[in-house]
Amino acid sequence: MKANNQGKIQLRKWKTLSKETLLSANTHLTVENHEILLPDGKIIPDWTWIITPNVVIVIAVTEDQNFLCFRQTKYAIEGITLAPVGGMIEQHEDALSAAQRELFEETGYSSEEWVKLGSYVLDPNRGIATINLFLATNSKQAALPDASQKDLEDQQLLFLSRDEIQKALFNGEFKAIQWTAAVSLALDYLSK
Amino acid sequence: MKANNQGKIQLRKWKTLSKETLLSANTHLTVENHEILLPDGKIIPDWTWIITPNVVIVIAVTEDQNFLCFRQTKYAIEGITLAPVGGMIEQHEDALSAAQRELFEETGYSSEEWVKLGSYVLDPNRGIATINLFLATNSKQAALPDASQKDLEDQQLLFLSRDEIQKALFNGEFKAIQWTAAVSLALDYLSK
Repeated sequence: MKANNQGKIQLRKWKTLSKETLLSANTHLTVENHEILLPDGKIIPDWTWIITPNVVIVIAVTEDQNFLCFRQTKYAIEGITLAPVGGMIEQHEDALSAAQRELFEETGYSSEEWVKLGSYVLDPNRGIATINLFLATNSKQAALPDASQKDLEDQQLLFLSRDEIQKALFNGEFKAIQWTAAVSLALDYLSK
Repeated sequence: MKANNQGKIQLRKWKTLSKETLLSANTHLTVENHEILLPDGKIIPDWTWIITPNVVIVIAVTEDQNFLCFRQTKYAIEGITLAPVGGMIEQHEDALSAAQRELFEETGYSSEEWVKLGSYVLDPNRGIATINLFLATNSKQAALPDASQKDLEDQQLLFLSRDEIQKALFNGEFKAIQWTAAVSLALDYLSK
């Protein structure tokens, strides 16, 4: 007995009854407790809700079809990882401006051809952050990376061919889920 | 001046000096403060670290090449979303067993053809959880969904053709980043 794809059933939303701050650790993390009313009248008194800064990720491709990536270490990642350009959106900054700023600061490259590959929640239950994915094609070097804006982590800028980045993606070398999503979607988009 | 892809520079790891629990909200969330030593000798005294349950996501494809997906609501998502099968890994359970259990409980389907599409950290800085992605091909209906294991959210099981799921992916209808990563990687894998 298969569900009927045509007949869309009504899906009911949960309602937030109250919010309370459990932890305000620093500018990068707030944890709240939400009291939630389910559609059937049941109440969940202790649904934790996490707020961290929203993020941009940029898959940048050069004029000669190389993908800009970093080899780097990250505190939550075992060993070495590959990572695209990315970072936090600053206050009063829109996602595209943050993407353009991060690309320029981290690599010295800029682009006039930006495609938004969507905005996604990091966690469907607890929220945590919105991840905004961008593809920047025909990127050109305009400056050297801005050393004053360098990430705290050691990193090395690489230029990967399309075959190399596809292979790295399948090998799991982009070790964070949002990087894998960004690379995979960008490659799909470029294949269309 | 491009970086030399061949000459890999040494990348230094950060070192954890101490850990302290800031919040132990429930079985689903612990927040720690980590004191971290950077390679240059600088100390970060207040790096927040988040621990939530590890997760499996299953892209399940039926014998007749339809993709099992849910239309559903989620607390952290605006409006309606599409979502693959998935859930938390239970204690003393390995990721594959959790994937097989979730597929069976949520849909009544099972498969003997499992491909692991990688394990990824949810957040490269704060950790949060490991997301394990699986593809289950040639899935067959073995029972009805287990009503006793039903998620709290309203949901409707759909069977999407490959064209339909590809289109939904590009339209951003899988609104959590791990779902988008799973669907995109699975479609890439099946295209190989």
